[in-house]
Amino acid sequence: MENPDLTLELTADEMRRLVAQVMEHLVAHIESLPRQPAVALEGGAEAARRFVEPLPEQGQPYSTLLPLLFEQAIPTSFNTAGPGYLAYIPGGGLFHTAVADLITDAVNRYMGLWVAAPALAQIEATVIRWFCDLVGYPASARGLLTTGGSLANFSAVVTARRDRLPENFLVGTMYVSDQTHHSIQKAALLAGFPPANVRAIPVDSQFRVQVDALEQRMIADRQAGFRPFLIVGNAGTTNTGAVDDLPALATIAQREGAWFHADAAYGGCFLFTAQGRTAMRGIELADSITLDPHKGLFLSYGTGSLLVKDGAALKRAHQVTAAYLPSVEDDPEVVDFANMSPELSREFRGLRVWLPFKMHGAPPFRRNLEEKLALTRWATAELRTISGIEIVAEPQLSIVAFRLTRPGLGPEALNRLNQELLQRINARKRVYLSSTFLNGNFVIRICILSFRTHLDRVQMCLEDIRAVVEALSPA
Amino acid sequence: MENPDLTLELTADEMRRLVAQVMEHLVAHIESLPRQPAVALEGGAEAARRFVEPLPEQGQPYSTLLPLLFEQAIPTSFNTAGPGYLAYIPGGGLFHTAVADLITDAVNRYMGLWVAAPALAQIEATVIRWFCDLVGYPASARGLLTTGGSLANFSAVVTARRDRLPENFLVGTMYVSDQTHHSIQKAALLAGFPPANVRAIPVDSQFRVQVDALEQRMIADRQAGFRPFLIVGNAGTTNTGAVDDLPALATIAQREGAWFHADAAYGGCFLFTAQGRTAMRGIELADSITLDPHKGLFLSYGTGSLLVKDGAALKRAHQVTAAYLPSVEDDPEVVDFANMSPELSREFRGLRVWLPFKMHGAPPFRRNLEEKLALTRWATAELRTISGIEIVAEPQLSIVAFRLTRPGLGPEALNRLNQELLQRINARKRVYLSSTFLNGNFVIRICILSFRTHLDRVQMCLEDIRAVVEALSPA
Repeated sequence: MENPDLTLELTADEMRRLVAQVMEHLVAHIESLPRQPAVALEGGAEAARRFVEPLPEQGQPYSTLLPLLFEQAIPTSFNTAGPGYLAYIPGGGLFHTAVADLITDAVNRYMGLWVAAPALAQIEATVIRWFCDLVGYPASARGLLTTGGSLANFSAVVTARRDRLPENFLVGTMYVSDQTHHSIQKAALLAGFPPANVRAIPVDSQFRVQVDALEQRMIADRQAGFRPFLIVGNAGTTNTGAVDDLPALATIAQREGAWFHADAAYGGCFLFTAQGRTAMRGIELADSITLDPHKGLFLSYGTGSLLVKDGAALKRAHQVTAAYLPSVEDDPEVVDFANMSPELSREFRGLRVWLPFKMHGAPPFRRNLEEKLALTRWATAELRTISGIEIVAEPQLSIVAFRLTRPGLGPEALNRLNQELLQRINARKRVYLSSTFLNGNFVIRICILSFRTHLDRVQMCLEDIRAVVEALSPA
Repeated sequence: MENPDLTLELTADEMRRLVAQVMEHLVAHIESLPRQPAVALEGGAEAARRFVEPLPEQGQPYSTLLPLLFEQAIPTSFNTAGPGYLAYIPGGGLFHTAVADLITDAVNRYMGLWVAAPALAQIEATVIRWFCDLVGYPASARGLLTTGGSLANFSAVVTARRDRLPENFLVGTMYVSDQTHHSIQKAALLAGFPPANVRAIPVDSQFRVQVDALEQRMIADRQAGFRPFLIVGNAGTTNTGAVDDLPALATIAQREGAWFHADAAYGGCFLFTAQGRTAMRGIELADSITLDPHKGLFLSYGTGSLLVKDGAALKRAHQVTAAYLPSVEDDPEVVDFANMSPELSREFRGLRVWLPFKMHGAPPFRRNLEEKLALTRWATAELRTISGIEIVAEPQLSIVAFRLTRPGLGPEALNRLNQELLQRINARKRVYLSSTFLNGNFVIRICILSFRTHLDRVQMCLEDIRAVVEALSPA
């Protein structure tokens, strides 16, 4: 027991050398991002198989491990960090996030209960307050940083359930549009609701929920003995960036006694822009809002947030106590995140948001977001000039959905044509686009959200679309 | 739109300088850990208030931000990373975790769906397989890395609910001991169960659930129309490290058709030792197991895990699909974590576990864990030599609970005496201990789990206990 050579604590020199070598790889990786393919999946299964092995008995120098990661594992992927990633919802990857986690993990403090690290808990509370100010929430609001939108939406559903339904809640019904993110469906499932209790209401031509249909369904459900308790409004859908009529939904929720949750996981950060504030007018009327910093604030994956207007409701839905925990005070300055979230032990996420805002201030975030909106308008205007391209969803934020049409082709042939178009655009590897189905049709999406995506890359995107459309044209 | 100065992308030089400066702070911090106080909460509220501010418009050089963090925010805390932290469940803080997250965040790949980064998804799957091998699970087992034990226990409850109960599940009852971690109670709450459906069964003199009482309660509940569907066995309680009779619980679960979950969040990693394997005999009989690498594998906060023997059950409980997601294959080599967990976007956690095991191999982890067990036995033997000290809970793993007794003092006076004892030990700041209530009595716990805690620090702990007990002795 006399301090045997346990070798898990690195010496100062070892720490410095390890980080120096990692930094060589990282700097080279980040600097080469513009030249890296937007997607590189060839040999993915083989690359993966190299990492199938039993627990190692022998250690290995990191000078061999790091190349394995940086040359084999990381490049075989959707290049979610690069400027050409215009698929799904781009995730950014600000280097500041990495630095914040380097600090957070190495000092390894616990901030889930205020008493254990008050200033670190306050950093997270301050970040939450910034977001509450952004959405226009009062001082009573509270919130959490989560790992992403899914757990934020889950805590919103749980909070709404606790606030609006009796203990026997299975008669509770919730209202979403058919464009709502499936994490709401998953949240309902996890929270115990039968899948059928989630009512998917059709959308209008702009992919916004049909407010009248939603209200009629709620009334009919109530008359049939259900308890409509939650409306989820979209503040930027994943498919097209559509923003529902938030004030109208707020009015219905108020009238029906339902909780109103706004899913702004993708769209919320555009509240930093004038266009976004106009598009999401009324978002402050929501009882809770999901907003993902790892989307519109360009952070690395692992930072979502939930904001709740009546902070006490969040706490009531999540708090349980235990004899072995420090006692919790009722001081309004004190924020015990463990008592308003599903998590007790978890990483400290506040520094990821705090550090880049403190280093740069808000203006570059705003300008970046304005640029993404402008780039999307530009791309849409360019798409219109390509013969045969139909804009299926006009951009409301930074997503445009389109497809190639051709007279005389039926729906299935058109779908196949557009699959071929997408496959060939992506095969050029300068940009990576994804698809979805709108009104039953296969459509291609461009989503511009990375802080690394600028006009030059969107120009490449349009060049590639144009070239492939031309190549696909009948002779 | 011509690439304005958006300033969020750091240049190679800026990245290197920022990390170099962070490393100066981190190395100094980690090197000074043995000399830092085990707890330093004076001025916490003032330190916190310095971080209350609106969203900054102006950036600030990190040369001023880093000292603010390292001199004001971080030191005002429970020193959870230091060798003297013997409170609650120590969390470790291997520097490798920080390096893994530096890489993970900077390259920012998405691995929730296999297709997006097969080799990174495989790294996480491999780590899960290591844990499955550790607990003795078959090839059909699957699992997840979570942010901690709370979300692991939550997914276990949801999986058990889906597997063993009908859609209308509110008649379902679950069985825990009165020593079970409150995250099970929270998981039940989040999953929609009325709090009363969690039956807390009394424990025996070694704080292990009374198996007969548990079985009788299940039978009585079934006869009363409830559906007993889940038994949670403790493989190392938070209070005392008690391990329930896992084989007996497995037998009852089998007989009653209930899911058997083992909460080994704290204890599970001791399966790396012979003593741990003996103590947790039968753990492989559990249908699911929570095991936290950020506890017994010394990682930084943010890495828990859930292992499920029938991997398909985990998936059935969590999977929903969406039009905008890549299609999912049925290839058994392919692991889509998003389809078996509550999370869609989240950080890549696999590298945190993979990197230290690949760098060192398993042996130093085993030796460290054996050392912690030996230190706990040593501390217990020493405690026995202190006049008036009563061992309230013999160590089953690396926790010992004790209190000072004094003839003639009633229960309340004894509690006050022990509160005073704890407060004075902690005031010496060489170690930080926590308390709990056992059989209604206030007791002091020593939990030895950090890779930084060795014999010298446990000696200091005993010196301080001895000195304070002496000072508290009646003249």
